[in-house]
Amino acid sequence: MRNLTMLMDYYELTMSNGYFVKGFKDKKVVFDMFYRRNPDNGGFVVSAGLEQFIEYIQNMKFTKEDIAYLRSKGEFSEEFLEYLANFKFTGTIDAVPEGTIVYPNTPIVTVTAPVIEAQLIETMLLLTINFQSLIATKASRICRAAGDAGSIVMEFGARRAHGADAATLGARAAYIGGANATATVIADEQFGIPAIGTMAHSWIQFFDSEYEAFKAYAEVYPDNCTLLIDTYDILKSGAVNAIKVAKEVLEPMGKRLKGVRIDSGDLAYFSKKLRKMFDAEGMQECKIVVSNSIDEFLIKSLQKQGAKIDSYGVGERMITSKSDPVFGGVYKLVAVQNSDGIFEPKIKISENIEKITNPGRKKLWRVYSKETGYGLADLLTLYDEEIDDSKPFSYVDPVKPWKKMKFENVQIKELQQTIFKDGELVYKQPSLSEVRDYVAYQLKNQVWEEEQRYENPHTHYVDLSEKLYGIKDNMLKKDY
Amino acid sequence: MRNLTMLMDYYELTMSNGYFVKGFKDKKVVFDMFYRRNPDNGGFVVSAGLEQFIEYIQNMKFTKEDIAYLRSKGEFSEEFLEYLANFKFTGTIDAVPEGTIVYPNTPIVTVTAPVIEAQLIETMLLLTINFQSLIATKASRICRAAGDAGSIVMEFGARRAHGADAATLGARAAYIGGANATATVIADEQFGIPAIGTMAHSWIQFFDSEYEAFKAYAEVYPDNCTLLIDTYDILKSGAVNAIKVAKEVLEPMGKRLKGVRIDSGDLAYFSKKLRKMFDAEGMQECKIVVSNSIDEFLIKSLQKQGAKIDSYGVGERMITSKSDPVFGGVYKLVAVQNSDGIFEPKIKISENIEKITNPGRKKLWRVYSKETGYGLADLLTLYDEEIDDSKPFSYVDPVKPWKKMKFENVQIKELQQTIFKDGELVYKQPSLSEVRDYVAYQLKNQVWEEEQRYENPHTHYVDLSEKLYGIKDNMLKKDY
Repeated sequence: MRNLTMLMDYYELTMSNGYFVKGFKDKKVVFDMFYRRNPDNGGFVVSAGLEQFIEYIQNMKFTKEDIAYLRSKGEFSEEFLEYLANFKFTGTIDAVPEGTIVYPNTPIVTVTAPVIEAQLIETMLLLTINFQSLIATKASRICRAAGDAGSIVMEFGARRAHGADAATLGARAAYIGGANATATVIADEQFGIPAIGTMAHSWIQFFDSEYEAFKAYAEVYPDNCTLLIDTYDILKSGAVNAIKVAKEVLEPMGKRLKGVRIDSGDLAYFSKKLRKMFDAEGMQECKIVVSNSIDEFLIKSLQKQGAKIDSYGVGERMITSKSDPVFGGVYKLVAVQNSDGIFEPKIKISENIEKITNPGRKKLWRVYSKETGYGLADLLTLYDEEIDDSKPFSYVDPVKPWKKMKFENVQIKELQQTIFKDGELVYKQPSLSEVRDYVAYQLKNQVWEEEQRYENPHTHYVDLSEKLYGIKDNMLKKDY
Repeated sequence: MRNLTMLMDYYELTMSNGYFVKGFKDKKVVFDMFYRRNPDNGGFVVSAGLEQFIEYIQNMKFTKEDIAYLRSKGEFSEEFLEYLANFKFTGTIDAVPEGTIVYPNTPIVTVTAPVIEAQLIETMLLLTINFQSLIATKASRICRAAGDAGSIVMEFGARRAHGADAATLGARAAYIGGANATATVIADEQFGIPAIGTMAHSWIQFFDSEYEAFKAYAEVYPDNCTLLIDTYDILKSGAVNAIKVAKEVLEPMGKRLKGVRIDSGDLAYFSKKLRKMFDAEGMQECKIVVSNSIDEFLIKSLQKQGAKIDSYGVGERMITSKSDPVFGGVYKLVAVQNSDGIFEPKIKISENIEKITNPGRKKLWRVYSKETGYGLADLLTLYDEEIDDSKPFSYVDPVKPWKKMKFENVQIKELQQTIFKDGELVYKQPSLSEVRDYVAYQLKNQVWEEEQRYENPHTHYVDLSEKLYGIKDNMLKKDY
């Protein structure tokens, strides 16, 4: 496992040294990790990346070289450097399980730890959860669009990913979001995501003719032969040669051409033409695979045009979430333990209203309708608040705080689980396919269709308990 | 060094096994890596990532576990797996030095190698060069915008980067493109990019009041005190407390407040207000640093509004190249050696005109005006063509092939250098600061301002020799 301990923002070190020097080393704090806006103006986010965050915490260690480097900066006290040399994370981390559907301004991860420990893990926590949640969410959008017409999605993005981690973990996140396979070999070897692929244009160009290229491939892979047919001319050359190889090479062996892929041109027009050509030849089982700048918007347009596409190879627009490539998860201090052991709430006010935080050590609940099973709202309460969902209870919708709201005939479920307890891992991470299944389960049974649509989805309610709202309201009125 | 050998597309393995089974293992080919479109409709790209590509080639090795995994797929011949177990790259790689300003459809990297070797390195070559070139180019745009008003840029993006590599190598690429510093500690430790940072909002919130937070920080870091002043209220609270600490804590020690940072609100309005407040207090040397969704467009807008900003902390919009997050470098077969040892040109035609390749084993030249030193055009010739730049010579502008064009009073320079020769590294990679200086040198002395502007920049000419154009033209007319 790679040691990514030094992947942090420098200010985490200056602050930590400051806390250390000022004698606050053991003071416990609470940080929430949350985000403010759904990517692509969608209705929700598929949270992902928790497994890699757990690995990071377990592998945190400042090496001798790290300490020497830090010493060379001339800003850190020797006692602090010694503290770092013996650093071990001893805090408690609660988080929603990977694959949980989440909403803005709700804590995906909550860290309760001595202030230095909580501060030093900020960057890796954010980048791990931010990136994979971004891609899982984008993949979910793309796969839902493809699935509407019974098509599947293969992840093809490694070459356009933002580095090796983005390629590998992006494939992982895309799988969580619903992709069926990946082109990226290392993602199969490491995570068991089915790796697939047949040929590039280079294979076709390498041979003296397109027919020879197809024939050679069919001979080597008679059971798994998908031919790329757009190197020279899709209809006049590629499709004709593919049919010829199906008839002359594969059928005499008792095999069938599995599919063709096109990577350029008018995908709607060509897919319909090809479907007719293949069907007329009795090649109904020959799949049509398309690639080239695919995303959910193009898929929907292709469907409207009656395109005949079995499978989408989706590259750059999924692995970079091209239409909205930034997932703005943040990590905010919400409470500091005072000398009586009480966690006092803290708030950040900011000049931008959307940057105001929900203060205090909290719990996150999801409220489900007992009738339909759908998630009606998320609810933030104080950490020690009890809710009795066997009878109606009231809450505050922060958008309409003047109105008393009530839930009834609902069931509530706490969303976060404890991952690390006083530094020890107490959580058993589900397998990757369990995570993927969990996403699919929620989208099928618990998330309103109105939240899943692409244009102006329903905004999921995130409500505060009356007590929490009262605390926040008082803090906003205070002077600092 | 991490072994990223298995970070490849599965089709590279199916093709390679196919070449192996069909007896083409030793056949040499030539691939060009190039891109088709400048990001953000800019005039050029700052190429970057070569150093990491070199490391990847040097570390390529299929482990026993890799081979066992591949065997489990049931598609590869045992002889091929044995070949992989003993794999070593033996080919020749030519590339433009890191930091070279490059243009669409010119080879940044050219690989001449046995076909399997050339094919297996495709994904890592692309993702390494694509990502860093994207970020170096974006950083260059942002830094040129900031530099126009004498401001500097600090890279703040790790938390929004697409994974750990994107954070680390993105900081490296941003430095190449002109950023002055980074917040990412590991990028300093690994690459010597100055790491900087002082405090997050959490520092302010942790203390009982903003004043106490500022005071504590100033006491620990009197020589390097930049205060974040937007946690509660920039003008009424943040700036007032910053001035108070400057006067009450720092000045009695003979120190000065180095700067303040704002991360929200109207940056133009507040920076002007703050400049006046600080100047009125005799704090002319107190720098104003801003962050919050900065990019070249916002910087230009702030400049127009007369903002008083010394330094920009640029995060998500640089590290993801948010406005255009995909760099579409491709890797195309351009020649195959025949049994006489001749490299026969190969072409990909495609349904999309912009996807047609420049065939053949080529050389890439830049043509400089002897008078001004500026790069007038790039020129692609056959590999063995000689050009005598001491007298006028003619070429073909592929956009206007019917016109005979001539260069005179120019100097030509070959752009690619040999990096690996028959598998051996023969190139000495310059230091990172040399790469950064080289970018700055070219932008100052060799790249027209007309190519550097942001709206409708001049399109750099990429011309073909008459011989190369003739070959391409003939190949387009052929049947396949």
